[in-house]
Amino acid sequence: MEEVDNNQVIFKGYIETLPKETDMELKVSKIKLKAPKGSGAILVKNLYLSCDPFMRGRMRDFQGSYIPPFVPGQALEGFGVYKVIDSDNPDFEPGDLYSGLTGWEEYSLIHRPQQFRKIQADDIPLSYHVGLLGMPGFTAYVGFFEVCTPKKGEYVFVSAASGAVGQLVGQLAKLHGCYVVGSAGTSQKVDLLKNKLGFNEAFNYKEETDLDAALKRYFPQGIDIYFDNVGGDMLDAALLNMRINGRIAVCGAVSQQSLSKPQGIHNLYNLIIKSIKMQGFLQHNYLHLYPSFLEHVIGYYKQGKIVYIEDMNEGLESGPAAFAGLFFGENVGKQVIRVASE
Amino acid sequence: MEEVDNNQVIFKGYIETLPKETDMELKVSKIKLKAPKGSGAILVKNLYLSCDPFMRGRMRDFQGSYIPPFVPGQALEGFGVYKVIDSDNPDFEPGDLYSGLTGWEEYSLIHRPQQFRKIQADDIPLSYHVGLLGMPGFTAYVGFFEVCTPKKGEYVFVSAASGAVGQLVGQLAKLHGCYVVGSAGTSQKVDLLKNKLGFNEAFNYKEETDLDAALKRYFPQGIDIYFDNVGGDMLDAALLNMRINGRIAVCGAVSQQSLSKPQGIHNLYNLIIKSIKMQGFLQHNYLHLYPSFLEHVIGYYKQGKIVYIEDMNEGLESGPAAFAGLFFGENVGKQVIRVASE
Repeated sequence: MEEVDNNQVIFKGYIETLPKETDMELKVSKIKLKAPKGSGAILVKNLYLSCDPFMRGRMRDFQGSYIPPFVPGQALEGFGVYKVIDSDNPDFEPGDLYSGLTGWEEYSLIHRPQQFRKIQADDIPLSYHVGLLGMPGFTAYVGFFEVCTPKKGEYVFVSAASGAVGQLVGQLAKLHGCYVVGSAGTSQKVDLLKNKLGFNEAFNYKEETDLDAALKRYFPQGIDIYFDNVGGDMLDAALLNMRINGRIAVCGAVSQQSLSKPQGIHNLYNLIIKSIKMQGFLQHNYLHLYPSFLEHVIGYYKQGKIVYIEDMNEGLESGPAAFAGLFFGENVGKQVIRVASE
Repeated sequence: MEEVDNNQVIFKGYIETLPKETDMELKVSKIKLKAPKGSGAILVKNLYLSCDPFMRGRMRDFQGSYIPPFVPGQALEGFGVYKVIDSDNPDFEPGDLYSGLTGWEEYSLIHRPQQFRKIQADDIPLSYHVGLLGMPGFTAYVGFFEVCTPKKGEYVFVSAASGAVGQLVGQLAKLHGCYVVGSAGTSQKVDLLKNKLGFNEAFNYKEETDLDAALKRYFPQGIDIYFDNVGGDMLDAALLNMRINGRIAVCGAVSQQSLSKPQGIHNLYNLIIKSIKMQGFLQHNYLHLYPSFLEHVIGYYKQGKIVYIEDMNEGLESGPAAFAGLFFGENVGKQVIRVASE
């Protein structure tokens, strides 16, 4: 069988600061559209690729995380939606659609599919399987319900609130009967939070000179739940404004420029004086809840009770800039790359 | 009835840094050894007073904590063992012994007894009711079992390990089948940890130039549970060495010199990449477990399976120096002041 061109986004080498477009490069290699006999592998065509902040952790030469670092010289890896082209594995049929970890390239030979899920024919946009119904959506769901254990009427603050995770946290919190305020970095995003995503209030953190004062303005009675997507100064300010028995889900630290020497957090003594729980979590430790998540979120979506905002870039070649842009808040909503149409 | 002299330790005024002996002063006032009729109060003779780091928080002019600040010009307040001298309250009998919050003075008129517990005649030293069987011991118990949810065979690190709380955490962890390492600030304390309190290993943090390296030496496989009594650099180093799904009980931050601008903690991203839970807690939110705590710990003590080290100072006048000394690690074991014998 003939080989075809396979455009790829290659990881150039380990970094300690924010990813730049130039930390990745486009390359064309060759691939046979065939899963080798006896390999048990599948050969897939990638349709959508997801830009997720957690991927930055894999750009660091650090082995102690839950997921190993990228290999320099090879394609990046991330969540995607793909179609099976050829299969040497009886569990996968050509033509079927899946979401799961795949390469940043047009075609991938996947030896051991990871975190993959079959996509059933439905009227939900395919790309939502890496967003609303994928890792970010499930992260929002378990982070909010399992880590934050919300009660009706509680005061909830969400940072990076229009992002892939934050936008769903806020909507779930509203549906749960909480009072929800979000922060974001542009007036356009603040407008979306208030007028499209149904947050009670929202503010542009870049327009605030004193984050503590801003939180006191929006939460005069204090914060019960902080869903933290940014770390840094906002976390420090939130710690000052937490209520007794407050909960902080530590989901991301996108504000941190440096991976090797992040900014200091000064207000942790609030954990003691206010009995606060602060918890990191990984959605894949809660996979037993995935069916219930899917049922709830698909239900809400079909009833029009939640919406999901995507920022769709066209073509694999737009990947490096889109990924680097995440860390400057350039995306409006969940950042996705459309590699190919079905 | 005649008034008698009542020696007191007076709180002079609010501070933002570490307590000094001179932030308190001795004063003699007068008191009638009588609970006024109709007051419902009790008049008690204080026998033992407890020096606890949490009292520093009350020296700060900050209303948002679980307990209000001290009142300048009045006696300090803390846990103590006292004997009822006179009672206008049918629930209290003269001659009975209690532990609970009381004043730093020879005699106190207590209008509404707080966190008080009747002491049953027993062969356990009276002063242990503010230590092993009091708030510090119960803090160790709920912090370890409820917040850290330990499993047999897990790796446990305790800082300030020979202190009022740490020494019991380590012994409970050993009895639970964990591997336990403690840190302390003198070679005498390290010796106690290894040879009297049964820790597997112990080290003097003041002799370590690199706390991260020290923890890697004692925990080559990483730490499952960190019982944090100190905050600061040790917390930052522990964060680097936590294992996936690790738990940190945030019990104290005695290392922090300043209450208004504590040192920054840089390694919180480990909460995310290792799914770590970090939790502040207050023993008084777990009081339903106190009977079970008492049963277990008294049982262990009577079987000789746990010991408890006290640092006993004689006389109320030794109080200010003993309290200030806590923050420089001058106490060896639980710091108590003997105000009077029965």
